[in-house]
Amino acid sequence: PKETAASRLRLAGGCFLLQILTIILFAVFVRYSPESSSSPCSQQLNCSWKNQDLGSQHPRFRDVHLQVLLGFGLLVAFLGRYGPGSMAITILIVAFAIQWAVLIQGFLYFFLNGKIYVGAVSMVSADFCTAAILISTGAVLGRVNPVQMLLLTLLGVTLFSINEYILLSLLQISDSGGSLTVHTFGTYFGLMISRILHRPHTGKRKEPQDMEHQADVFSVVGTVYLWIFWPSFTSATTVRNDAEPWAVLNTYFSLGASTLATFVLSPVLYKESTLQMVQIQDATLAGVAVMGMAGEMLVTPFGALIAGFLAGLIPPLGFRFLTPVLRSRLKTQDTCGVHNVHGLPGVLGTLLGTLLAALATADAYAGRMELVFPLVAQGSRTATDQALRQLCALPITLLLASLGGCLTGEFCR
Amino acid sequence: PKETAASRLRLAGGCFLLQILTIILFAVFVRYSPESSSSPCSQQLNCSWKNQDLGSQHPRFRDVHLQVLLGFGLLVAFLGRYGPGSMAITILIVAFAIQWAVLIQGFLYFFLNGKIYVGAVSMVSADFCTAAILISTGAVLGRVNPVQMLLLTLLGVTLFSINEYILLSLLQISDSGGSLTVHTFGTYFGLMISRILHRPHTGKRKEPQDMEHQADVFSVVGTVYLWIFWPSFTSATTVRNDAEPWAVLNTYFSLGASTLATFVLSPVLYKESTLQMVQIQDATLAGVAVMGMAGEMLVTPFGALIAGFLAGLIPPLGFRFLTPVLRSRLKTQDTCGVHNVHGLPGVLGTLLGTLLAALATADAYAGRMELVFPLVAQGSRTATDQALRQLCALPITLLLASLGGCLTGEFCR
Amino acid sequence: PKETAASRLRLAGGCFLLQILTIILFAVFVRYSPESSSSPCSQQLNCSWKNQDLGSQHPRFRDVHLQVLLGFGLLVAFLGRYGPGSMAITILIVAFAIQWAVLIQGFLYFFLNGKIYVGAVSMVSADFCTAAILISTGAVLGRVNPVQMLLLTLLGVTLFSINEYILLSLLQISDSGGSLTVHTFGTYFGLMISRILHRPHTGKRKEPQDMEHQADVFSVVGTVYLWIFWPSFTSATTVRNDAEPWAVLNTYFSLGASTLATFVLSPVLYKESTLQMVQIQDATLAGVAVMGMAGEMLVTPFGALIAGFLAGLIPPLGFRFLTPVLRSRLKTQDTCGVHNVHGLPGVLGTLLGTLLAALATADAYAGRMELVFPLVAQGSRTATDQALRQLCALPITLLLASLGGCLTGEFCR
Repeated sequence: PKETAASRLRLAGGCFLLQILTIILFAVFVRYSPESSSSPCSQQLNCSWKNQDLGSQHPRFRDVHLQVLLGFGLLVAFLGRYGPGSMAITILIVAFAIQWAVLIQGFLYFFLNGKIYVGAVSMVSADFCTAAILISTGAVLGRVNPVQMLLLTLLGVTLFSINEYILLSLLQISDSGGSLTVHTFGTYFGLMISRILHRPHTGKRKEPQDMEHQADVFSVVGTVYLWIFWPSFTSATTVRNDAEPWAVLNTYFSLGASTLATFVLSPVLYKESTLQMVQIQDATLAGVAVMGMAGEMLVTPFGALIAGFLAGLIPPLGFRFLTPVLRSRLKTQDTCGVHNVHGLPGVLGTLLGTLLAALATADAYAGRMELVFPLVAQGSRTATDQALRQLCALPITLLLASLGGCLTGEFCR
Repeated sequence: PKETAASRLRLAGGCFLLQILTIILFAVFVRYSPESSSSPCSQQLNCSWKNQDLGSQHPRFRDVHLQVLLGFGLLVAFLGRYGPGSMAITILIVAFAIQWAVLIQGFLYFFLNGKIYVGAVSMVSADFCTAAILISTGAVLGRVNPVQMLLLTLLGVTLFSINEYILLSLLQISDSGGSLTVHTFGTYFGLMISRILHRPHTGKRKEPQDMEHQADVFSVVGTVYLWIFWPSFTSATTVRNDAEPWAVLNTYFSLGASTLATFVLSPVLYKESTLQMVQIQDATLAGVAVMGMAGEMLVTPFGALIAGFLAGLIPPLGFRFLTPVLRSRLKTQDTCGVHNVHGLPGVLGTLLGTLLAALATADAYAGRMELVFPLVAQGSRTATDQALRQLCALPITLLLASLGGCLTGEFCR
Repeated sequence: PKETAASRLRLAGGCFLLQILTIILFAVFVRYSPESSSSPCSQQLNCSWKNQDLGSQHPRFRDVHLQVLLGFGLLVAFLGRYGPGSMAITILIVAFAIQWAVLIQGFLYFFLNGKIYVGAVSMVSADFCTAAILISTGAVLGRVNPVQMLLLTLLGVTLFSINEYILLSLLQISDSGGSLTVHTFGTYFGLMISRILHRPHTGKRKEPQDMEHQADVFSVVGTVYLWIFWPSFTSATTVRNDAEPWAVLNTYFSLGASTLATFVLSPVLYKESTLQMVQIQDATLAGVAVMGMAGEMLVTPFGALIAGFLAGLIPPLGFRFLTPVLRSRLKTQDTCGVHNVHGLPGVLGTLLGTLLAALATADAYAGRMELVFPLVAQGSRTATDQALRQLCALPITLLLASLGGCLTGEFCR
């Protein structure tokens, strides 16, 4: 009891210090983005990719508005999934990660004359970042205390932003839905922390069972949010008003096919007479993770169905064959199975995106080329070149996530 | 146990075959809709009604975007209502019905030079269709196995699309919210299947009670979704940007009045001291079903209140007096009471829409005439003519739904 | 049992009479708003503040559309919070309050030539009003019967509309998010009724415990709705398309900081090892209440963090120290603690808004001045003048709410 009192006070103190720190940094650095059309972002700032998404067109308030809605909708879906055991802590992480991500990403993308200029775009980026952190916490849930969670958030947000900056600003790859930056990074960062924090005796605890029992309502609501919000989310940043929403269509088809894949495989692998909602949510998440990078490319409708179907096969197979191996051989526990649900589908999505980038031709994409692969459209890069860079981004992300996870895990211990 | 193993494998096999079939058909036929403003739809395709809704104006991506959100929101409300007993199966149906509806409706509306051109409009239509199928499953829930459900979906989507094509493209009636195409068709299709599959001994099972108990959270969430999403849904397809949203207002008023009607009638009919949320959800659904066709017409605010009030009286009366008669005399079970909640209010809404179509004058509608009754506005049809066709659509829908239901029921057996 | 039968019939009769009354008043007075751009509102009607929000620009259907969605989303969040004990009654109140508010606010704002012209704006205003009524019911929940609730709604809507009319139309203060009109009015109106209806013996009943137990799912869903919908709601009425969404950013930052504040304070005040979701929802509500008036002003990002942090400290302190005093000394029970969650943060938000109004300069606001303080921008009022009026609005609201609450309480008895 004395120890829990001390840990409660440590949490209170940690929150207080972090909030004071954030307030001070905000007071010194953060200003509203100016309203004039000659915004600093479109001219001098190092925000070319953000720019390409949102800034270069006339600022469309309502779109961004909606995106922020949707962005949080996606967090919520994750909340429903990774939260039920410790929903309150998860909301703490969201509340802090958003503030911290606005700062860190502000330094990288929106920094000019010693000030960070925040606007709606900052909040959308912060939402993406928070999603990756929630995936990471899914791997370690139930085995770290709240203060460790805060530390994980602090370092995770920073590393995520650096990785994203390398991928999107330096390599200029195309990953609007975050197959690589969100799903893959979040997974391996979390798994590495889980490995470092592994303690042999605490392997068998009752959280997972307890969670599964309570989680049914949440997984229904979460699945539904994903179906509603994600297709729009992957597309909202990229598609002009007058274009057909490829990313929406692709993600929609992928969702449908991955759900059917679960119904194909689960009855074969498991003995239970009815599917649990959690399995369907796994399929849904895998279906969106695989479309993160490829969604806005020319997947073609049947390609999206095939990719979704393959992605939907991964979680049941992974939970059956891979998770036990990970736990026993590699001493890496994975509380919520993020490796099967986000990691492998994310990697698959990256490979698919690379393939599609290599096959991209100006004829097939028409005016869309400028949106999806701006450098290829401008002629400063060939499609093969673009594909190579998309491929290179995978090991970079894996490396950064693993090293960062090791570091964070050591800090947490 | 051996039988359940066999049925599990049958389900897995069925899903696999259907998914492979869909992928092949998609690969052969489905292409992205071209982006140029001279889209095939606006010129050559047989999609005049879709056209009138969305295509003829400048493609408004964001609207459609929102609609897809909302469209799925409405499915979700149905999920919450008809799903709790077998939520997983319901999501399977949604996942398959959307793919299949894109194909079938593509052949009817978006077929050109041997290819189906899909876009956001396809997905909205597919959502409508899936809503009708969910209503049908509400009638038979708990008495059919998953493989029969898939068969029901396969045939139901096909018949729904044919009926919709006859009503909207051949007869050119106005039914933007689906009083007739969605609610009435879905109900009688499901009831007919229920009648064919009737087995005397299995009449009393424990699903309904079990469901009611668990359903409270879901019916709250579902009711709330309906209040939020439906008013916009019925209007989003039809109203121009600069027009006042009649359909939203009418549906809103109708929802309010139908809720009060339940509070008026339920205390008189039932002895329980408190209303159950399910009854309020019934009232809500009846209130939107009655505004499906008439919503965008000149109902006038107090007309919407009266229509909503009458619709709200139907479910309590129906559950009390009609459902027992249906079950004992007509041997038709109705697990979720779709006849009281969707069928009768849908028919009432159709009659109301017919009346309003007959009374429509260019003076009262002004510029709106072109949107609601385009042929009347162009002078190629009188208001009486339009009303007669709206009325004819009712027996056609009932006939198609009943025959289709018989056929599907026989197949399922 | 006989008494409950009588009370059931009284409720049925009350609903019936009120619905008939509403239908008659709608039939006599309510018409659709005409569509032409020369709408009566923009020229002759007494709706300058509504005008400033929505009417003077080209009618933006889609925005209003979205607002109605969001508006109901906010009601829903309240439903989740104040409803679980008697969700059905709460939905009855929503259904009736919306109809009644359309009438009363119609007489005040949209009345011309003996008719009320309703449009989407009417519905948004009605949503705001209903939110205030739900806050009031939160104070008395569990201690009034349904018929009393209807009476409370009838009088509460009327008084809310009069107060709002005085503040927004006569004093022309700026309160787009309703710190004063919604949160403060709703709280003190409800508390006053609670005080009048106080009966010493019924002080200890089991509702609160019972509610807390069941409320977890609802409070998660409610919190999430608030995070998603409220930031947009406070901004949607005020911001032009090409402006950065200050109100969204401010509310977002305020939400984050208030959540952290709860994690700072709760471990110190309470012994439980984990935070309950209800506490986080309290923090969320306080964080939005404090940004109601100030959200669209120049709070600056770190100012929003500080205000949110302070607002987040109020509920835990209030529940610990203030609520017992209220109950024992002032004989005022507060079932859901609305005083801590809405009342004090609302007053704090009003003071903050007053301060910011006094500090407003044309330089700092640039083009935004015209939106936030139109009279100051036109030069017919100084910033100090505006601030004085904002400050005066507080005692006026408190007085009206208290007197109205006394009156309503006496009527209910």
